[in-house]
Amino acid sequence: MKIDILTLFPEMFAGVLGSSILNKAAEKKAVSYQITNFRDFSTDKHKTVDDYPYGGGAGMVLKPQPIFDAVTHVQKGYDRSRVILMCPQGTRFDQGKAEELAKEDHLVFICGHYEGYDERIREHVVTDEISIGDFILTGGELAAMVVIDAVVRLLPGVLGNVQSAIEESFTTGLLEHPHYTRPADFRGMKVPEVLLSGNHNKIEEWRLRESLKRTKNRRPDLYAKYEESDRKKLDDI
Amino acid sequence: MKIDILTLFPEMFAGVLGSSILNKAAEKKAVSYQITNFRDFSTDKHKTVDDYPYGGGAGMVLKPQPIFDAVTHVQKGYDRSRVILMCPQGTRFDQGKAEELAKEDHLVFICGHYEGYDERIREHVVTDEISIGDFILTGGELAAMVVIDAVVRLLPGVLGNVQSAIEESFTTGLLEHPHYTRPADFRGMKVPEVLLSGNHNKIEEWRLRESLKRTKNRRPDLYAKYEESDRKKLDDI
Repeated sequence: MKIDILTLFPEMFAGVLGSSILNKAAEKKAVSYQITNFRDFSTDKHKTVDDYPYGGGAGMVLKPQPIFDAVTHVQKGYDRSRVILMCPQGTRFDQGKAEELAKEDHLVFICGHYEGYDERIREHVVTDEISIGDFILTGGELAAMVVIDAVVRLLPGVLGNVQSAIEESFTTGLLEHPHYTRPADFRGMKVPEVLLSGNHNKIEEWRLRESLKRTKNRRPDLYAKYEESDRKKLDDI
Repeated sequence: MKIDILTLFPEMFAGVLGSSILNKAAEKKAVSYQITNFRDFSTDKHKTVDDYPYGGGAGMVLKPQPIFDAVTHVQKGYDRSRVILMCPQGTRFDQGKAEELAKEDHLVFICGHYEGYDERIREHVVTDEISIGDFILTGGELAAMVVIDAVVRLLPGVLGNVQSAIEESFTTGLLEHPHYTRPADFRGMKVPEVLLSGNHNKIEEWRLRESLKRTKNRRPDLYAKYEESDRKKLDDI
């Protein structure tokens, strides 16, 4: 997979793309990243990327020209690219969207900063508008990094087997049960007896019950979906 | 505000905290950041931070000792700290939570990576568990950066007046109307006539109608809330 990032703040990305799984994925050639400052594509002599909004109002608007031309440039050689605008008006990002994007060959992220986008960018360049949640960020950069992290770790060969197993346990539709490690008594705080028992049936039952309890308390929406799917419930155990 | 970040990947943060508004906020002394590698607090000779889970299973679990001691260390001198665990089981982050956290003096973010947390950390150290959405990230680092960005930009003096005005327009409960800037005709793609008319009443009406349409199409949940509040609706204009 090739990932192109269009931004006015390229320096934000090195630390994140150069660490941990995102870095390992690039070393394994499962992905390559390219960061483009779309200011470089501005054709006016001051390299302007924004201008005042038609109709008046506060704030500036990102001009169509630099972004149109930067996208055309990075799309060369790709028949099909997903061109993603990170913005609060977009579709809410979730694991399903991450799985969908992980099947693509080429993702282009457009990251605005402070400002609005000229609507012609949305209409004629962008294939997906994505939001990571109902909160205001300074720019699309952090949101793009979040999406990139969630997608890249799903690419074939990126995660080891152990991690894949953890993944599976996450996709039960329940929140995870509590975890404990040594020491059994840490400054008077103790690990539940059952986990020290060696009785695997009891341990599995305890874990399922705790997962169900936690999900019911914290995420009644997920618990309702799980109940509908007619799987083991709290009353059963 | 002081923000402490506990992580095993300190190098992920420099690019983000050193750019744009997060950097300006630190220069204006509205906030200071301190990054702590909690491995430095491990008391065992191999500086281990994780161990196998009690009861078996895939994956490793972060031990209580390094995190307990790192949190105690960074809390020195603060009567009250919010100690935030970034995890998928947490409360969903939103703008209301950002506003709440922006009133605090001291935030501590605990960022795990790949692994589970020993439950005693959740029970005895953490005041808030926060999730930024239903997707799987490699670690809590990016999620913490998202929360930090949303919070720091709300601190007094961090944003200029123009940006504050944009903020206000966001808090109408509607998605933003489309924006356009010059040129009026970009490669055959035109700006709507009304925005060029100079008629401010018509422009405001067009913007409200577009905001309402976009919200109704894309975020029926927000539109329903807005309707309940008995404000101007699509049928009215």
